[in-house]
Amino acid sequence: VDHFGFYNTKSFKQRYLIADKYWKTYDGVILFYTGNEGDITWFANHTGFMWDVAEKLKALLVFAEHRYYGESLPFGEDSFRDAKHLNFLTSEQALADFAELIRHLRKTVPGADGQPFIAIGGSYGASAPIWQFQELIPCGVFMKIVTEDFRKSGEKCSESILRSWGAINRLSNTGSGLPWLSRTLHLCASLNAEDIQRLKDWIAETWVNLAMVNYPYPASFLKPLPSWPIKVVCQYLTNPYMSDSLLIQNIYQALNVYYNYSGQSKCNNISETTTGNLGSRVWGYQTCTEIILPFCTNGIDDMFEARVWDLDKYSDDCYKQWGVRPRPSWVTTLYGGKDIRSHSNIIFSNGDLDPWSGGGVTEDLSDTLVVVNIPEGAHHLDLRSSTDTDPPSLELARTVEVKHMKQWITDFYSNNRRQP
Amino acid sequence: VDHFGFYNTKSFKQRYLIADKYWKTYDGVILFYTGNEGDITWFANHTGFMWDVAEKLKALLVFAEHRYYGESLPFGEDSFRDAKHLNFLTSEQALADFAELIRHLRKTVPGADGQPFIAIGGSYGASAPIWQFQELIPCGVFMKIVTEDFRKSGEKCSESILRSWGAINRLSNTGSGLPWLSRTLHLCASLNAEDIQRLKDWIAETWVNLAMVNYPYPASFLKPLPSWPIKVVCQYLTNPYMSDSLLIQNIYQALNVYYNYSGQSKCNNISETTTGNLGSRVWGYQTCTEIILPFCTNGIDDMFEARVWDLDKYSDDCYKQWGVRPRPSWVTTLYGGKDIRSHSNIIFSNGDLDPWSGGGVTEDLSDTLVVVNIPEGAHHLDLRSSTDTDPPSLELARTVEVKHMKQWITDFYSNNRRQP
Repeated sequence: VDHFGFYNTKSFKQRYLIADKYWKTYDGVILFYTGNEGDITWFANHTGFMWDVAEKLKALLVFAEHRYYGESLPFGEDSFRDAKHLNFLTSEQALADFAELIRHLRKTVPGADGQPFIAIGGSYGASAPIWQFQELIPCGVFMKIVTEDFRKSGEKCSESILRSWGAINRLSNTGSGLPWLSRTLHLCASLNAEDIQRLKDWIAETWVNLAMVNYPYPASFLKPLPSWPIKVVCQYLTNPYMSDSLLIQNIYQALNVYYNYSGQSKCNNISETTTGNLGSRVWGYQTCTEIILPFCTNGIDDMFEARVWDLDKYSDDCYKQWGVRPRPSWVTTLYGGKDIRSHSNIIFSNGDLDPWSGGGVTEDLSDTLVVVNIPEGAHHLDLRSSTDTDPPSLELARTVEVKHMKQWITDFYSNNRRQP
Repeated sequence: VDHFGFYNTKSFKQRYLIADKYWKTYDGVILFYTGNEGDITWFANHTGFMWDVAEKLKALLVFAEHRYYGESLPFGEDSFRDAKHLNFLTSEQALADFAELIRHLRKTVPGADGQPFIAIGGSYGASAPIWQFQELIPCGVFMKIVTEDFRKSGEKCSESILRSWGAINRLSNTGSGLPWLSRTLHLCASLNAEDIQRLKDWIAETWVNLAMVNYPYPASFLKPLPSWPIKVVCQYLTNPYMSDSLLIQNIYQALNVYYNYSGQSKCNNISETTTGNLGSRVWGYQTCTEIILPFCTNGIDDMFEARVWDLDKYSDDCYKQWGVRPRPSWVTTLYGGKDIRSHSNIIFSNGDLDPWSGGGVTEDLSDTLVVVNIPEGAHHLDLRSSTDTDPPSLELARTVEVKHMKQWITDFYSNNRRQP
């Protein structure tokens, strides 16, 4: 449980999945998925890229679950009980788990010891938005990219959303407004006046999620969605200048693309935006401790109500919810922030449509710290299975990634192969 | 106190020393001594190399104390109480302290932010015996080098020591042997039969310490000593084939070189081998947790009684003394073991006379992982002040070290200097 101290001697079972169908022990490779904030079976099922390249690279696939997610719970059901039990949920502990698992695999899987390991992951589990931290980039970048995605997907689309916040505010100030909003948005629970901020946060987060999964083909990563879902959303948001109530009815139609594309949803629950497979509950703990992501909006460069980044308030909220306070500079001290030229062999892959690309590395830092930009890509699109409808920029990205990996493998064997 | 968890929010005062006499904020450098297992003022006083090069490099000198040593105690007087309070004594926590201190200096010392930092240290605090761990080198290497130092320092010297163990064993089996040994060796406390192993360990550790401080000039690092102290020791150990009692009388004379060169010592305490400034007490905790150094002897390749490396017994002893058990593979998993070619800008400096050189890096690993070998050097001799009696190989070593540092500084400024 604790790699970084010797007083706690507890251990726990970490789950990992392994697939060796195409593995060659002579000149293969071990592709090691460094699990992020969710159930590992779900990631294994949504990371078709690894399955697609396994044969080409003669690869053993390993998917390692991140502690405190899925079934890898350090204290079983008690793991989430309080700050004391959550204390061992950090990225350092998770990386140490992976390092120990790699050591274990080298020892126990015949043929693994002489092979190169390549870590693969998405989002928090990978090398993507490593600069989305304090003092590294402006806090408004993320929401600006979300806004841009909507602006480009339909005329007046982002303006409609920008105007919707005022419409909600005005409606919620009238006597009949709250029940009308609850009814019109098909909410599961009736709104009270104090729920309005939560309602707007829920809607805003929906637009953010759509920006992340704005994929060129039908997919069900966070939710089942059509191809280019923001384009579909924007079909309902073409006129910002209608009455408040008509605008909100259109907002409802737009939200419905995300929440009810399957037609199965009976009502909307404003406490929920993503699938249950993403362990959003303890991810909140991580964003309250190490992974402090400063976001802000101003309603000018973006389509959201203005909100400053207020670390003190954020810290108080964290303390209320988790009993811990963030240390926002630690992650930069630990991993190096912008000063990472001494690292090597990393592909930083970003989709230009992905709001997280704003905190990503988008220019080569050295010969071996290389960038793959996907103009038509949303959040880690390149990790998905290849499809017939992939845009050429996506095919190219995957080709470049495989090329780099092949080079690393060749380099590994030419440096390490024992002479016969 | 805990960089790697958010439940414990305690902090403590870390001591550091700073010297800016020769510092230039335009094109200088910050030499950062990463404190090891002792009082930092003592290291600052014994690291003349940094003071000697300060002017040449226009350097700010910083000496940072390692937590749990000197005055940098996380829980004050309680720090050493039990395994719970010692839990935060790890190399990771100490490195995190240094990283936070560097961040603090960059923020608070005008001019520090735009400057390169170079870490300097000795032994545990540096990059010296990084391979003295399980499965990386044979466990007998260390004591073999100790033996070699004695063998080269006087005819029959190592043979005399090898024979002395049997002499002690035989004497301790006779009725009058124990009081005779206590008297002859001028021990502070009379020996009991069960003390004999401790006595032999104390003598063996004395020979090890002499190998570490076998310097070419009079010095007082662990103890006040003459130049080439092993040569002086070996003057008393020229004949292994005399009677047991005469041999032990000579061993006493030889030990006296180490314990009573100043003539001030009244008696020998077999619980003590080094100066009190090296925090040997909690260093024992570190060697029982992370820093597991497997040593063994066979009495054939070395001058010691044969002893295998017995991890189980070692672990039991650790548990008895500290309430913790070692994790001998963790340090290799954490720092990379032999697989460190992805690191850069490290000078591995070793003295061939130093028994720790057996666990050191003694061949270049890459263009920027470079080696400095000092044939006439004992334990981190190059960190001492330069003297008129330095052997040429030592002068050359320091010149090469300064040359590399200058290159790093030049590279730093050509990569980072903002254009005017």
